[in-house]
Amino acid sequence: MIILDGISDRALSGKTPLSAANTPILDEFAKNGINGIMDPIAPGIRPGSDTGHLAIFGYDPFKCYPGRGPIEALGVGIKLDSGDVAFRINFATVDGEGSVFEKIVTDRRAGRISETNSLIRAVIGRVKIGTQYILAKGTGHRGVLVLKGNFSEKVSDTDPKKPGEKVKKCLPLEEGAINTARIVNEFLEQAHKVLDSHEFNIKREQKGLPKANAILTRGAGKFKKVISFEEKYKLKFAMISGTALVKGIARFIGGDVIEVKGATGSKDTNINAKIKAAIDSLDEYDFVAVHIKATDEFGHDMDFQGKLKFIEKIDKELSKLFELDFSKVCLIITADHSTPVSVGDHTADPVPVVICHEGVRVDEVKKYSEFEAYKGGLCRIRGIDLIKIALDLINKAEKFGA
Amino acid sequence: MIILDGISDRALSGKTPLSAANTPILDEFAKNGINGIMDPIAPGIRPGSDTGHLAIFGYDPFKCYPGRGPIEALGVGIKLDSGDVAFRINFATVDGEGSVFEKIVTDRRAGRISETNSLIRAVIGRVKIGTQYILAKGTGHRGVLVLKGNFSEKVSDTDPKKPGEKVKKCLPLEEGAINTARIVNEFLEQAHKVLDSHEFNIKREQKGLPKANAILTRGAGKFKKVISFEEKYKLKFAMISGTALVKGIARFIGGDVIEVKGATGSKDTNINAKIKAAIDSLDEYDFVAVHIKATDEFGHDMDFQGKLKFIEKIDKELSKLFELDFSKVCLIITADHSTPVSVGDHTADPVPVVICHEGVRVDEVKKYSEFEAYKGGLCRIRGIDLIKIALDLINKAEKFGA
Repeated sequence: MIILDGISDRALSGKTPLSAANTPILDEFAKNGINGIMDPIAPGIRPGSDTGHLAIFGYDPFKCYPGRGPIEALGVGIKLDSGDVAFRINFATVDGEGSVFEKIVTDRRAGRISETNSLIRAVIGRVKIGTQYILAKGTGHRGVLVLKGNFSEKVSDTDPKKPGEKVKKCLPLEEGAINTARIVNEFLEQAHKVLDSHEFNIKREQKGLPKANAILTRGAGKFKKVISFEEKYKLKFAMISGTALVKGIARFIGGDVIEVKGATGSKDTNINAKIKAAIDSLDEYDFVAVHIKATDEFGHDMDFQGKLKFIEKIDKELSKLFELDFSKVCLIITADHSTPVSVGDHTADPVPVVICHEGVRVDEVKKYSEFEAYKGGLCRIRGIDLIKIALDLINKAEKFGA
Repeated sequence: MIILDGISDRALSGKTPLSAANTPILDEFAKNGINGIMDPIAPGIRPGSDTGHLAIFGYDPFKCYPGRGPIEALGVGIKLDSGDVAFRINFATVDGEGSVFEKIVTDRRAGRISETNSLIRAVIGRVKIGTQYILAKGTGHRGVLVLKGNFSEKVSDTDPKKPGEKVKKCLPLEEGAINTARIVNEFLEQAHKVLDSHEFNIKREQKGLPKANAILTRGAGKFKKVISFEEKYKLKFAMISGTALVKGIARFIGGDVIEVKGATGSKDTNINAKIKAAIDSLDEYDFVAVHIKATDEFGHDMDFQGKLKFIEKIDKELSKLFELDFSKVCLIITADHSTPVSVGDHTADPVPVVICHEGVRVDEVKKYSEFEAYKGGLCRIRGIDLIKIALDLINKAEKFGA
């Protein structure tokens, strides 16, 4: 499965980056497959990259999405146990007197600091909150905090989201969360003390750089184990992605993540290496998903031409997929959601989907685009049904009844 | 409703038996109706003939399918009460010493014996298991066993499924099934004693024929009454089918079965007589379903040409339906599932559906085939919605709200 993150758009003067791009390879797959449009979650529901991926892997995000924290934690490689409460964190710069909650956030990203390892070690070594916790580095100024034990995820964010405001107190959103909120606040207070006087930050201050002297939390979520993809579909699952969030989804459903050199999760990613790794890994895995992120980034950047050019770049790299034996391999090319350049964010506009496999009812669609896919033989399907449809096509579905 | 069992296929060199067949009558209905594709149960779910029929009659098989035993029992004409546990049985030949469970099944079908009436009478007369039961003849060597009273359907099969193995003991699959398993084993043991020494079997032995000296059970299911089709839709229901399983489904939903001379449920069936009987029965019934089985058989046999020719044979016989007054009658032509000749079994590939009735939004589909139906005005629907759609078209649907 090739997942072109946010590849589809709304119309801008009758065109989209995908429909305007020259994509002979994608079009060849459209010509030889069965096409349709797909609501990753459901019509009118705007998917996140996490919930969108969950849905197209056959998991109802309304039932099993644990919130952003646990997915990020899994994404950076932390093993979670059922009941763990995880938060996204970022290192920030605060200024003022007294308690951390009296101080003003002057930079939510502490100058986009990325060398946070020594700070994390210092916090872990010196902050004691009376319970076991994990603090781990993410990309750049980001990271995750996991509380082990009997805590509640129903607590508010402490990140004020914009600079110039005070660090927010963590508030319980239900009665059972009072202790959790207290523990989080205690953590933030102690962490600030440790960080503010840390040698690394003193040196940053001397260099005129913003101190990474506070931790802000958001996206609390409780991890609950779901049935694994392998158990659910009897297919061994692997994900190739440069994006921590998507790796987190893969691990959430019990899959493996194949690390590929040059898979950056951004515009400079090595698509060729990812496709090659995917094809090679078919020896070991039954189901391999390749996630390509940058189409979504160009959507967020509202960059029509950039998105179009990147789509054409992807298209060239996909020619390697012609090597596959379609009597054995079922190829799906789709997206986790639309990210129209006209909106600059994810929308619920359905995504194109093509399935190539020997015996599929090839339709008359000749181009992989939003304006052609809906005419195909799949009509309009939902993400939650996609894997089941593919399982049937490869004759791995069981008959229900006699 | 005309149900062409398993008529649709996957593509084989771009063709299917249905798409390659010359079907002027079916195509005429496609031209004059509204077309679409339908997932009998849901996308990617492979229907059995029983669950597929349940679904296209508007019953969610995930909620109400009682397993094969009760449907077969209803199919051979047994009246069931809620709570009855029914099994499919077959007469088999066993050989060896001691208990029936020590003996080897040498022929699972006892030489495809079909005259089992005297054997059944003997068992009923002499086998006492301390509870009321029904033993009834099915087609050929098959039959059904029903335990009346408070029993569990969570017991294992005793049919080893292949010759050369011992008769399996019936095992409880849950704690509450211990007594049921014991009763089944007692029944099998006693039945074997009665059958092995029965005069009819002695005579078979003398003629060199395999003795029908054991009963094997499988497909245990508990019957639970569902709301009848008539109560649900205010339509009096009749089924015309030569297949016991489909008759069973009709009776399961409280419908009548119209027996038609020459309806064999096989390749030699009298389609003309079935269509004629259906048209005639519209005086008495509001909803009449005609089930034609052999398309499915050719699919199982992986016989492309046979299926194609049989479709052309069906097509000719359907011309009689032009007599209908489509201002009064709503005609649906569809299938319970696909049975591709390339697979030789049921698949989840959607089936074509056409609805002909005065006022439907006639679309541009000109041919009744997998490669055209999806372009029609119904797009892609689910079996569970089909009757409701038809009810609306004939103005028998009630408004919800004001």
